[in-house]
Amino acid sequence: MVQITLIQIDNYGPWTVTPEPRREADLQTLQSRLFADLSQTFGSYGCLVFFTRFDNMIAVTNGMDVDDHLRVQESVSNRYPVSVSMSIGCRDTPRDALLDATESLQTAGSAQDEERQEELLGGEACEIGDTAQIAHFDVNDATEKYTDELNAFDSFIHIERGYASLMEYMWKQESSASFFVGGDNVISVTRDLGEKELLGAIEHVENEAEVELKVGAGRSETPEEASMDAKIGLEDCRENGDRVVIL
Amino acid sequence: MVQITLIQIDNYGPWTVTPEPRREADLQTLQSRLFADLSQTFGSYGCLVFFTRFDNMIAVTNGMDVDDHLRVQESVSNRYPVSVSMSIGCRDTPRDALLDATESLQTAGSAQDEERQEELLGGEACEIGDTAQIAHFDVNDATEKYTDELNAFDSFIHIERGYASLMEYMWKQESSASFFVGGDNVISVTRDLGEKELLGAIEHVENEAEVELKVGAGRSETPEEASMDAKIGLEDCRENGDRVVIL
Amino acid sequence: MVQITLIQIDNYGPWTVTPEPRREADLQTLQSRLFADLSQTFGSYGCLVFFTRFDNMIAVTNGMDVDDHLRVQESVSNRYPVSVSMSIGCRDTPRDALLDATESLQTAGSAQDEERQEELLGGEACEIGDTAQIAHFDVNDATEKYTDELNAFDSFIHIERGYASLMEYMWKQESSASFFVGGDNVISVTRDLGEKELLGAIEHVENEAEVELKVGAGRSETPEEASMDAKIGLEDCRENGDRVVIL
Amino acid sequence: MVQITLIQIDNYGPWTVTPEPRREADLQTLQSRLFADLSQTFGSYGCLVFFTRFDNMIAVTNGMDVDDHLRVQESVSNRYPVSVSMSIGCRDTPRDALLDATESLQTAGSAQDEERQEELLGGEACEIGDTAQIAHFDVNDATEKYTDELNAFDSFIHIERGYASLMEYMWKQESSASFFVGGDNVISVTRDLGEKELLGAIEHVENEAEVELKVGAGRSETPEEASMDAKIGLEDCRENGDRVVIL
Repeated sequence: MVQITLIQIDNYGPWTVTPEPRREADLQTLQSRLFADLSQTFGSYGCLVFFTRFDNMIAVTNGMDVDDHLRVQESVSNRYPVSVSMSIGCRDTPRDALLDATESLQTAGSAQDEERQEELLGGEACEIGDTAQIAHFDVNDATEKYTDELNAFDSFIHIERGYASLMEYMWKQESSASFFVGGDNVISVTRDLGEKELLGAIEHVENEAEVELKVGAGRSETPEEASMDAKIGLEDCRENGDRVVIL
Repeated sequence: MVQITLIQIDNYGPWTVTPEPRREADLQTLQSRLFADLSQTFGSYGCLVFFTRFDNMIAVTNGMDVDDHLRVQESVSNRYPVSVSMSIGCRDTPRDALLDATESLQTAGSAQDEERQEELLGGEACEIGDTAQIAHFDVNDATEKYTDELNAFDSFIHIERGYASLMEYMWKQESSASFFVGGDNVISVTRDLGEKELLGAIEHVENEAEVELKVGAGRSETPEEASMDAKIGLEDCRENGDRVVIL
Repeated sequence: MVQITLIQIDNYGPWTVTPEPRREADLQTLQSRLFADLSQTFGSYGCLVFFTRFDNMIAVTNGMDVDDHLRVQESVSNRYPVSVSMSIGCRDTPRDALLDATESLQTAGSAQDEERQEELLGGEACEIGDTAQIAHFDVNDATEKYTDELNAFDSFIHIERGYASLMEYMWKQESSASFFVGGDNVISVTRDLGEKELLGAIEHVENEAEVELKVGAGRSETPEEASMDAKIGLEDCRENGDRVVIL
Repeated sequence: MVQITLIQIDNYGPWTVTPEPRREADLQTLQSRLFADLSQTFGSYGCLVFFTRFDNMIAVTNGMDVDDHLRVQESVSNRYPVSVSMSIGCRDTPRDALLDATESLQTAGSAQDEERQEELLGGEACEIGDTAQIAHFDVNDATEKYTDELNAFDSFIHIERGYASLMEYMWKQESSASFFVGGDNVISVTRDLGEKELLGAIEHVENEAEVELKVGAGRSETPEEASMDAKIGLEDCRENGDRVVIL
């Protein structure tokens, strides 16, 4: 069972243009500092948050209970001009967990509803002992092939295309949620996938977007340990030329 | 003439796995704090930086000279475990400016070359009086249509698809560099575009990705003022139902 | 039994002037960001850290074990150009706990020893169930008497004088460690003090430094709850005109 | 002529306890992040800000005009749950400049007046070409004598005592404003002082508080350059055994 938390800045769109549009540099600074803070805090619980759209962030939170979420929420309100609502889902697949979380939040009101503030929903956190699987993908020889050869923007377009292809495939075929995490890296929170399924994802992206990937995967009670195992698997791929390593 | 700065974290990929992989939460926190700092600092010069791939960031920097860049570079080294190299281009189009900047940096060495540290290249900053055009796109009724209706991930996939389509079109057809800036917003640093060209971009994305956009645009000696005019244009679109407003 | 952690930036003095003096604004930014990060992280464990001298910080850490400290230490190294050593003491009084922690750290090497890096010492964390007492002092009518009447610097001198007097008295007479936390506030980590002892401290400061204080105090398994009770006690003082309230 | 800016968080005291007391860890994080941001931003203008009491900060701002201050103020409001008022003074001595700034701000309303928000006062910025003198003091052999020998708190008390003595002397005798900046360092924004006056300050502190200091001083159009010269002077002291070096 995997636990997913959807985090949404309350009424953020209207706030950014009220009473008049706010400077873009301030908004960029605000959004990335808020995400960094959440990453640091969720990290101290052994969890991982992804920036996604910045106004909507998604976290994998096995091991965090409702009180832990409340504390994070209160800390945001105490230090930012905006507040966040959160919704927790716990299901067999990341997709179902996120669908549950989204539905709870939408039922509570619109993302642009002034009245909907600091909701904490879903409430059914996973139990101790439930584990999450994390897969960490990167692009083969990204620096040699792209960063040092193509101009910065063509590299970016190429990597984005591979990422979009992977994200959509994993979501629709494997009920898994994938996130760009910088550089040429994508992290997927997955349902229980084996070598065959992960290889299938890699081959799909190679055919559709002409981007060659490799992947490591791990499973643990804390997302952090699962992520660390996935990274070690990816290092094994680098050393041995494997395309998939599951620890 | 538009001035573009390419910012690259030196030898970042190898650093993230040496001597062994570093915790993902720490890397996410580091990357987003570094970007936030750059956004704040470039912002105090009236400029804008985009997170792009986080290890490679792109900024529009009309009004900042080489000394200003040096100070930013030194401040990063004084406060982070990594350093950054920067390369400046000034040309008629964002595309040409970025191509110049990329070429200078690639000539100086690989992004994963241990010896290439804190380079500051390009050197030909634009002149006082040169202006940049900024266009700010967002999705029509994104909250009503997507955020409050679709689950969080399908919204994200849909918006990403529109963004990828816009980014590629603007780059190839209009020599302009576009960046996702959170929510349903994309900012383009553009060559001198009129209503016809901007409408062309919107129609292309509608046909290819079924995402309906609107756009405001502005031009000024500082990217910040151009960006603010673009936002005001976008507010005009919201009020009047226009698809393109150029201030 | 109270648990105190001494945190020391490794070899910081030499680093600030090597190879040549670093800009003061960068050092101030670095120090205060590092402290803020530690405050946020220790806070997520229900603990409190004080900036003290910035290169040496002191925390009250009941409830955090050695592994929790290791994770904080690793996170600092992953995100800053400097590392920290830590030393833990658990004793009946904050003074004895801090003396133990200091002694362990000094035995491991000088604060300016290049070889002494990322030590984690002391190791004897308190047990679950041990509690800490926190007292929160502030100045009576500070805003009316000082901030709005005196110039900014004379207010500052006056408040500092009261603070120095309190800090020294609490340390020498009551084996308690006191910290300026901004505004007109001082927080003491205390041995088990009653109304008589706290009133004694207030009267001492009034006689020696002509600053009138009031104080709330609380005791709990987590420093955060003890601190919150102390604040509530202080609010009671404000409302009822009491000088000491112990919850 | 030296330019001093007083920065005051609006209505901060009441905010910290409304509707009920906020967690101390959040307040500490908020205050130190706000100070870090101001230090970074003022730093990008070549200026210096001191944390002072955190709710009241003092900056030396030669080279920043009223518009620059407005931008900083707006950026704070865009990213924090609190706003700041600022007041600028420009006079022959830091003391007079700060007295002017304080008086303007007090005239506008109390620090705890809900109606007084985001004031920007004083308005008479210094002219281009005006210079500021900065003196940088530290304690002789602080690490050997105190940090590695005394326990952490006795070191802290000893250094604080020297600092309090210096701060008061410089303010009353020399119309200069001094600030603890971490470790064993104090920075003074001074009126035009020569070797005799600086030596007088050192001797006063040695007699009154038994703390031996040395000092470097510099003067420039930007506080940053003056501060850098002061640091270089201090390094000269270290190498040559001098007690005062003025560049």
